[in-house]
Amino acid sequence: MTTKLVTFEDGKGQRAGVLLDDGRVLDLAAVAIGTLAGQTGDMLSLIEAGPAVLAAARALAAEPPPAAVLDAGAVRLLAPIPRPRRNVFCVGRNYMDHVAEGDRTRGIEKSELPKYPQFFTKAPECVIGPEETIPDHAGVTQWLDYEVELAAVIGREGRDIPADRALDHVFGWTVANDVTGRDLQRRHGQWFKGKSLDRSCPLGPWIVPAAELDALDTGIRCRVNGEIRQESRTSKMIFDVREIIRQLSMGFTLRPGDVVITGTPEGVGYAMQPPQTLKDGDAVECEIDGIGTLRNAVRAGL
Amino acid sequence: MTTKLVTFEDGKGQRAGVLLDDGRVLDLAAVAIGTLAGQTGDMLSLIEAGPAVLAAARALAAEPPPAAVLDAGAVRLLAPIPRPRRNVFCVGRNYMDHVAEGDRTRGIEKSELPKYPQFFTKAPECVIGPEETIPDHAGVTQWLDYEVELAAVIGREGRDIPADRALDHVFGWTVANDVTGRDLQRRHGQWFKGKSLDRSCPLGPWIVPAAELDALDTGIRCRVNGEIRQESRTSKMIFDVREIIRQLSMGFTLRPGDVVITGTPEGVGYAMQPPQTLKDGDAVECEIDGIGTLRNAVRAGL
Repeated sequence: MTTKLVTFEDGKGQRAGVLLDDGRVLDLAAVAIGTLAGQTGDMLSLIEAGPAVLAAARALAAEPPPAAVLDAGAVRLLAPIPRPRRNVFCVGRNYMDHVAEGDRTRGIEKSELPKYPQFFTKAPECVIGPEETIPDHAGVTQWLDYEVELAAVIGREGRDIPADRALDHVFGWTVANDVTGRDLQRRHGQWFKGKSLDRSCPLGPWIVPAAELDALDTGIRCRVNGEIRQESRTSKMIFDVREIIRQLSMGFTLRPGDVVITGTPEGVGYAMQPPQTLKDGDAVECEIDGIGTLRNAVRAGL
Repeated sequence: MTTKLVTFEDGKGQRAGVLLDDGRVLDLAAVAIGTLAGQTGDMLSLIEAGPAVLAAARALAAEPPPAAVLDAGAVRLLAPIPRPRRNVFCVGRNYMDHVAEGDRTRGIEKSELPKYPQFFTKAPECVIGPEETIPDHAGVTQWLDYEVELAAVIGREGRDIPADRALDHVFGWTVANDVTGRDLQRRHGQWFKGKSLDRSCPLGPWIVPAAELDALDTGIRCRVNGEIRQESRTSKMIFDVREIIRQLSMGFTLRPGDVVITGTPEGVGYAMQPPQTLKDGDAVECEIDGIGTLRNAVRAGL
């Protein structure tokens, strides 16, 4: 079993914990382990506390002290990082077949693959957690779409990081849904507007420590109302996580707690025949093998 | 005289103040005025404290209590918001003549103006203050360029803000230099990478309250080593500040302390004949009439 690092809320504030196999949650703020004590007890503190504290958390999860365990019914899971300290960093057009399907919708027959990653951002307040609702933004976009993506959470500060050291800077992996207003994305040219609608970045349901998953080759898929829409492997990225971190960090310092989402595979709604948009009542499930499933419903209004 | 709201450092931490006409600084944290007391005393607190506190600060600056005034030599001015809470929001290709000069460098004779603003972001840690140095990033870009821009600081939260109410959401105005790696901007397609090198967002030297300047029509220019490179008026924007705020806030909540920079006029280095890049030793002055002059030197390395 992998370690599931969660942020939860139990009426006494947001804290970091470990989701146990039986559905209960180990409250890491309630266990006094070395440097973790004195931290604020949230996920960003846990990330910044470094590998020794992560190792302690994993050890405690194996034999959880009963007094520090909360019943499943007493807690609500939030996004593992409910509010990143700055915008979520994103990569566009990073799976070959997704580039091709996008080009087809614009009448381009022979796709040219990006020679460099296309970086853009989503505002930190876009982040929502598992089971939270995605607004349909009907007054702003006529074309809301899903995009399942592997998210890398940065654990160690670095600039000009070489590819062969990049994974040393990853704290862990989680799942993101890069919800997009396609019409906005296209008409504004630069993608921030179409990518940064309020509540348009479901993230979670938890973080799996970097060492517990080979995220360079794992299954990734998205279902809408139970129907598989996207189904691929992270090995099909044009720029893999190592290369993304290398290029993103050129002249630019990555920091602990940064969230980098790595592009979506083929199967998005706007490239379907006929095209599909997300609408009120849709249930979206984003899933990555070895991490878990991030579920969110679309609802009218906010 | 306009009010000059500064963030300063005097060895006892960063605080908000008012730069007086004689060069001294009124320390707003040292004067007990209503709701300002109890705030942390930084610029974000001042912005969030609302119009009454701003009015009090202006009144105090007119007759500053001697005990709350610091000598010019005792303080160093920082960026008015040294670390925005999230990425700086930016607009590209927003002056007609700048669109045309950019197109010329790509061999396009007849320019098509953007129909919608092109929004992208710069990471908050890019922000540096007046007189701080801009690294040349020689290992990462061969083409570092300047861009003087009017910056709007948001004072009041809002979403779906109509254009005719947009200025009510502006706390004040300052000057930005949207330092850009042109080669990176081009090759990555999306602009975040070329726009977000470390220390690539000089901001300041101070904030002028919104009501004290007609920012919709004021002079804007940039000098490099004393030579005027950019010289225009903000009235030549394709999308003015009201329209930028209207479109940026569609389905997206703007928050107090957000920084929105509004595009640069013609005269950037890459469009010159022959093209010019910023290099070690260059002195860049970005100036907006009614605000002031933001000076930064370029230096090799960091």
